[in-house]
Amino acid sequence: MELLKNKIIKEGEVYDGNILKVDCFLNHRIDVPFLKEVCREFHRLFKDAGVNKILTIEASGIAIGTLVAQEFGCPLVFAKKTKTKNIAGEVYTTPVESFTHGTTYNIMVSKRFLHAGDKVLIVDDFLAIGNAMRGLINLVNESGAELAGCGVVIEKGFQHGGDALRRENINLQSLAIIDEMNYLTGEIIFRN
Amino acid sequence: MELLKNKIIKEGEVYDGNILKVDCFLNHRIDVPFLKEVCREFHRLFKDAGVNKILTIEASGIAIGTLVAQEFGCPLVFAKKTKTKNIAGEVYTTPVESFTHGTTYNIMVSKRFLHAGDKVLIVDDFLAIGNAMRGLINLVNESGAELAGCGVVIEKGFQHGGDALRRENINLQSLAIIDEMNYLTGEIIFRN
Repeated sequence: MELLKNKIIKEGEVYDGNILKVDCFLNHRIDVPFLKEVCREFHRLFKDAGVNKILTIEASGIAIGTLVAQEFGCPLVFAKKTKTKNIAGEVYTTPVESFTHGTTYNIMVSKRFLHAGDKVLIVDDFLAIGNAMRGLINLVNESGAELAGCGVVIEKGFQHGGDALRRENINLQSLAIIDEMNYLTGEIIFRN
Repeated sequence: MELLKNKIIKEGEVYDGNILKVDCFLNHRIDVPFLKEVCREFHRLFKDAGVNKILTIEASGIAIGTLVAQEFGCPLVFAKKTKTKNIAGEVYTTPVESFTHGTTYNIMVSKRFLHAGDKVLIVDDFLAIGNAMRGLINLVNESGAELAGCGVVIEKGFQHGGDALRRENINLQSLAIIDEMNYLTGEIIFRN
């Protein structure tokens, strides 16, 4: 998606440790009018997939999930990272290893909100090694729902998590795939 | 807002400990088409206040903040609860005591995303004692931005945090104020 690539080049910042900082438009300050265009693109890509539920993970997936759900006119469910006392009853849960933070945490979704018969589009802001995405896919599989596909705003192609998912025939659509970043020059090279 | 009150009565569940569970439409599974109507109401209430930025707090404020920002055509900034290594540079920060979890945590916003000259509408899903809302107001004040007002979906009126803010001349608009809940009968009484 050219609009997105141009935004990343213009506003993204590359740091040592394979970090791309886009917190000025994607995950701290959110450029909502821009993100709406991004989410329309997800709708265009998945509109014929029979999607009736969007699934994402807190916190930075929620804005994207909300705008994608709006395009589909369906509900959003977001997986939680910690158990709060306001989630009663049984949950689907799976561990996720965080590359960014070097820790493992559990994600969970209430069994009331994901079932057999659902056709789920998973969306998230980033995909790198793919651990969070695999966790979300596990929750969908555990619930008996069907996975329609996965939509990612920015894929770090050089970490190959997306390639592995595609080899497993997951319908993963990333709107920008970065094959190389150089924190010394700031250069970002996208996959064609 | 009648639509919201009816939704709370129909789908909300009252539990011991002053807990109103609305995770089926507001903060786990999100009924996005419904929430869009709620957020249009915030726009109607604050449309003449000169708002150029929406501020909320992760995680459950983000869906609301996104849809309100869409109505205003402005960016959303969400305060974070933990420092991640992807937030570089200086932040505004303030402690918040959590009534729900019995802990104190810091919330923070990057100084790049809140400044003098901004006119900020704060939105959140719940207001009870008002600690999170006061934390967000502190961040706005620290930054030199101007507070246009605060919009809350559900205020627990019987915990009086909203009343205290109104006495301080904060323009707080809550779309549903609950004055009494009874977990034995499930009854919910709204303030007129």
